[in-house]
Amino acid sequence: MTSTLPTTKMANAIRALAMDAVQKANSGHPGMPMGMADIAVALWANHYSHNPANPKWVNRDRFVLSNGHGSMLHYALLHLTGYDLSMDEIRNFRQLHSKTPGHPEVDITPGIETTTGPLGQGITNAVGMALAEKLLAAEFNRPGFEVVNHHTYVFLGDGCLMEGISHEACSLAGTLRLSKLIALYDDNGISIDGHVEGWFTDDTPKRFESYGWNVIRAVDGHDVNAVDAAIKQAKASDKPTLICCRTVIGKGSPNMEGTHNVHGAALGDKEIAATREAMGWTYAPFDVPADVYAAWDAKEKGQVLESNWDGLLKSYSEKFPKEAAELARRMAGELPGDLNKAVDAYIAACVEKKETIATRKASQNAIQALAPVLPEFLGGSADLTGSNLTNWKECVAVRADQAGNHINYGVREFGMSAIMNGIALHGGYIPFGATFLTFSDYSRNALRMAALMKLRSIFVFTHDSIGLGEDGPTHQSVEHVSSLRLIPNLDNWRPCDTVESAVAWEQAVKRKDGPSTLIFSRQNLPFQERTAEQIANIKRGGYVLRDAPNAKAILIATGSEIELASKSADELAKHGVAVRIVSMPSTDVFDRQDAAYKASVLTKGVPRVAIEAGVTSFWYKYVGLEGGVIGIDTFGESAPAGVLFKHFGFTVENVIAAVKKTLA
Amino acid sequence: MTSTLPTTKMANAIRALAMDAVQKANSGHPGMPMGMADIAVALWANHYSHNPANPKWVNRDRFVLSNGHGSMLHYALLHLTGYDLSMDEIRNFRQLHSKTPGHPEVDITPGIETTTGPLGQGITNAVGMALAEKLLAAEFNRPGFEVVNHHTYVFLGDGCLMEGISHEACSLAGTLRLSKLIALYDDNGISIDGHVEGWFTDDTPKRFESYGWNVIRAVDGHDVNAVDAAIKQAKASDKPTLICCRTVIGKGSPNMEGTHNVHGAALGDKEIAATREAMGWTYAPFDVPADVYAAWDAKEKGQVLESNWDGLLKSYSEKFPKEAAELARRMAGELPGDLNKAVDAYIAACVEKKETIATRKASQNAIQALAPVLPEFLGGSADLTGSNLTNWKECVAVRADQAGNHINYGVREFGMSAIMNGIALHGGYIPFGATFLTFSDYSRNALRMAALMKLRSIFVFTHDSIGLGEDGPTHQSVEHVSSLRLIPNLDNWRPCDTVESAVAWEQAVKRKDGPSTLIFSRQNLPFQERTAEQIANIKRGGYVLRDAPNAKAILIATGSEIELASKSADELAKHGVAVRIVSMPSTDVFDRQDAAYKASVLTKGVPRVAIEAGVTSFWYKYVGLEGGVIGIDTFGESAPAGVLFKHFGFTVENVIAAVKKTLA
Repeated sequence: MTSTLPTTKMANAIRALAMDAVQKANSGHPGMPMGMADIAVALWANHYSHNPANPKWVNRDRFVLSNGHGSMLHYALLHLTGYDLSMDEIRNFRQLHSKTPGHPEVDITPGIETTTGPLGQGITNAVGMALAEKLLAAEFNRPGFEVVNHHTYVFLGDGCLMEGISHEACSLAGTLRLSKLIALYDDNGISIDGHVEGWFTDDTPKRFESYGWNVIRAVDGHDVNAVDAAIKQAKASDKPTLICCRTVIGKGSPNMEGTHNVHGAALGDKEIAATREAMGWTYAPFDVPADVYAAWDAKEKGQVLESNWDGLLKSYSEKFPKEAAELARRMAGELPGDLNKAVDAYIAACVEKKETIATRKASQNAIQALAPVLPEFLGGSADLTGSNLTNWKECVAVRADQAGNHINYGVREFGMSAIMNGIALHGGYIPFGATFLTFSDYSRNALRMAALMKLRSIFVFTHDSIGLGEDGPTHQSVEHVSSLRLIPNLDNWRPCDTVESAVAWEQAVKRKDGPSTLIFSRQNLPFQERTAEQIANIKRGGYVLRDAPNAKAILIATGSEIELASKSADELAKHGVAVRIVSMPSTDVFDRQDAAYKASVLTKGVPRVAIEAGVTSFWYKYVGLEGGVIGIDTFGESAPAGVLFKHFGFTVENVIAAVKKTLA
Repeated sequence: MTSTLPTTKMANAIRALAMDAVQKANSGHPGMPMGMADIAVALWANHYSHNPANPKWVNRDRFVLSNGHGSMLHYALLHLTGYDLSMDEIRNFRQLHSKTPGHPEVDITPGIETTTGPLGQGITNAVGMALAEKLLAAEFNRPGFEVVNHHTYVFLGDGCLMEGISHEACSLAGTLRLSKLIALYDDNGISIDGHVEGWFTDDTPKRFESYGWNVIRAVDGHDVNAVDAAIKQAKASDKPTLICCRTVIGKGSPNMEGTHNVHGAALGDKEIAATREAMGWTYAPFDVPADVYAAWDAKEKGQVLESNWDGLLKSYSEKFPKEAAELARRMAGELPGDLNKAVDAYIAACVEKKETIATRKASQNAIQALAPVLPEFLGGSADLTGSNLTNWKECVAVRADQAGNHINYGVREFGMSAIMNGIALHGGYIPFGATFLTFSDYSRNALRMAALMKLRSIFVFTHDSIGLGEDGPTHQSVEHVSSLRLIPNLDNWRPCDTVESAVAWEQAVKRKDGPSTLIFSRQNLPFQERTAEQIANIKRGGYVLRDAPNAKAILIATGSEIELASKSADELAKHGVAVRIVSMPSTDVFDRQDAAYKASVLTKGVPRVAIEAGVTSFWYKYVGLEGGVIGIDTFGESAPAGVLFKHFGFTVENVIAAVKKTLA
């Protein structure tokens, strides 16, 4: 602590800004910022290594507000320490296009590391960040040159700890011994429904000890020195640390502190006045005195921290120029120059080989082809490695004492996905992780968060339909492909063969403004012949795979149903009905093409039949009220795949009947 | 143990059936049944209270195979103890329309209590069953008449324990002291990726102690007497119990036991022969000798158990005839005779009052009106009670030492939903539980499981769109309503006012073959005038809310967008364009109506514009390629609701433009 200002006054500045901003917006959560203000002083004034002038400094500590409803705490800290976040923005809390939205949003506010609010995901993102730091350090640091060396700090509350994802993430963090992850638990005994003892009685310290964490119990969260000492102890541990801070929610409000009334609503003018009085805070709303600003100001210290690191990096660059250039490239998220060559060569090989294999195997082949030029690949699976085929020959398993590039996430789909988001947010890696498509349900909100945050997380989903077979309806996707297509900014790919699988991987890797899902079959799918132009068009999401002069109808299909479309087209031709086949591996990408291209693929006025082993509703967007859809609107059954496709009507006869109906 | 047959031989019968059935299907999981066979002997032969002749006996113990991939264990037990599950069915393991699907499915196989496979949900269903038992016992038992008095047993493995939902469910089970819940953990140290020490190192006993469970450590899972003793100890505890059984996966297979190779694939003829040899099992595949059948046979014992209970119930019925009749009604899932009267009176009151209120408030009013005639209502919220408004005046909070009918589930959306499914499976209650609509993502697979199992679980989702306002895009649903509509057999309702909200509740309660979601607004919505015929048509999912002679276009809207449709129709009328308004609170229910009715609502050839504050793709099914959709295909923003609706184009001008475009 360099300032002589009492820490209580520093904390009270946060309390005042939080209660005033919430009051002005008449919306928000004052209780958490007021309760955690002293903890924030201990962490941000004494430990948090950052540079307000450069929120993207590569080696900064990461700070995650997992209890994101307390966003005003973070905004107050950013404002007070000198980030480009003006008092006008604080006044505009929760207003359209302000930099101070209701919950913290990455890329909106300088200094916000991840978007939080959906509980439990912040701590999980933080696990991903800490894991990325550990792996990157192992890969790039050299003796005497710890160029990657920072902590990840998390604030979290009872809500995060009740969420199941906190179990998945913290269990894995313990196993992988992420010792630079330090979580500060706001143990205030209150959640929205009131005092938690009726629904949350975990012995949380014991729980975290069972995960192999260092747990510091019963710290007074309003004693800055005590919290400071705990953080020091945490930094010295070889395990991740949970610091349990006993706090009073809404601390400072004489009539409301310690109750759930202060959790999610403005205090009201009267109580705010009483709080000002009780705190001895004599300043007007949004007025912060100079001595408080001075005490909080982290600009100078931040510049020194970054300069020192710059010096280290300079020496490192001189001694390890290749590593330094690679680290810079990786942290900038730039792709290597030889990527295109590798992709082109691999696609040419696919065209040459004409293999009939499962697309999950085609995916593994694509990974194998790309991994040598993409050292930033960080793969993994939620305990289905041998089924998802996300591993490759040279990959190395990540363990507590072993850096690597393939993660056995365990049976933790949601945790895996939100950890991947944390890895992507940290930078340095392109994370991909897999499970069966049906269990995308478990991780769905993490996919949504990746899309909202525009992250390059690549979600691999195999066993994508009733083609999964005997495992039955609990494991067979029916609604999932369409359902994922509804998430804004998520690009979904369901390729039909080796070549489309390769292009899907390429596009997912190259995408800079959002996540992708890669959806693959369990069963073998035949290779499709294409011209060079057709291959080039795959990346447009939908293209004419097979045409016929004067086609009377268009068959639109994806993935495993391209084979059925193809057989149906053969049979229709025998009946004198010429049809075009449109392969549509990504409707999301196709929808973004220009109108002329789209019209060239789906010619206006030509009747259409869509074929996909999933629910039908989505496809009317492409076939219209008069078109046909061959799909499945019930759950699947347990039986061999071939039996099921026939049972559910994926037959040439049914396609022909549907085409004839649209022509009638 | 009444038989003198060695327990090993009883267990080996399970092992043989499991390996032979998996081999014949060439698909399935032999490792778990072989590893847990001795545990199954201890539980099923000595403790499990059931009657094979009546799998629906009300007071039977419940048995849940949370590690559902080991389905052959359960099928073997059902076959051997005398359920109506023939050896032909065992031979037909994993074949179309057999009673032995890949994972256990309720209503397909007699004796299966819940459908499992998606890991972690079985144990969570079991928590719901144990909770239902505890509450029902408190409600109906009288001194000396414990007519509701059974245990719930669960088998689970490492996978279930890694899943986050196990944390949510087991934490709450500890808090609520569900002492008749007994879980047997198959601690074999193996998951699909191999030996778990690289990704799963929890001290599980310690973890469960932190939840307030009774934990019995380090039981030899191949020592029937040891497991038997542990179960006895568990039954005597006043807490839920976890019995940690050390086992060898695939026990009995001389060359493969203890490895992940035996987890999910057939052993092969050679290893099966070696296993037979090693076990001294000299019988042909699917041949079970008479002494083994005799040792396992539970028919006689089961009949005695049920007869004894019948006797108790008879005395109870004589002393407490009203309670006995009510218990019978409740466990049969029949609705009370006075329900219709209550619904009609409440709807009449709504029509009378013409209230402009949020539909979440309308929902609470409906609950308030129905609760007096529906004592089976068991409500709850995932820590948003005051926002979801699932409570009512007379409701009583469920606590460890307090029976009640409203559950504070804590911030545990997935756990809540799968617990609700367990409650519905147990019988005696109609569970409903709530969160914000966006967080339906967290619980999505439990909704799917409810739909697959055809359960009367009622999922209440409030704050259903950008109308949520300042909390921002993390909390604002955009894709969710449409996305839920894609789940087969899930009826989704998004009502527009008090009357539609009442009908939605009525339909959800009356539905006998599946779950419903009830989707409500945060913000106030105006009352709509209707004729009696229109009110009667609400239950058809879609109906003409407002008509015009010679309507030139149809506006289709749901929920909060009915108001915009209505204002737009007024304005269009001024421009001389007469339009019909179709209110479509449930597309799922509307789709099930007969063709004539549907055509009477959506007249063929009349241009259509759909309006919903959500993604647009789904609506082309109703408006076609030439129709218009006013929706939102991006994430929301943090701002007051009114600002957002305007910002995202939900304006009369835009609706008019869309209508004019379809007319052009």
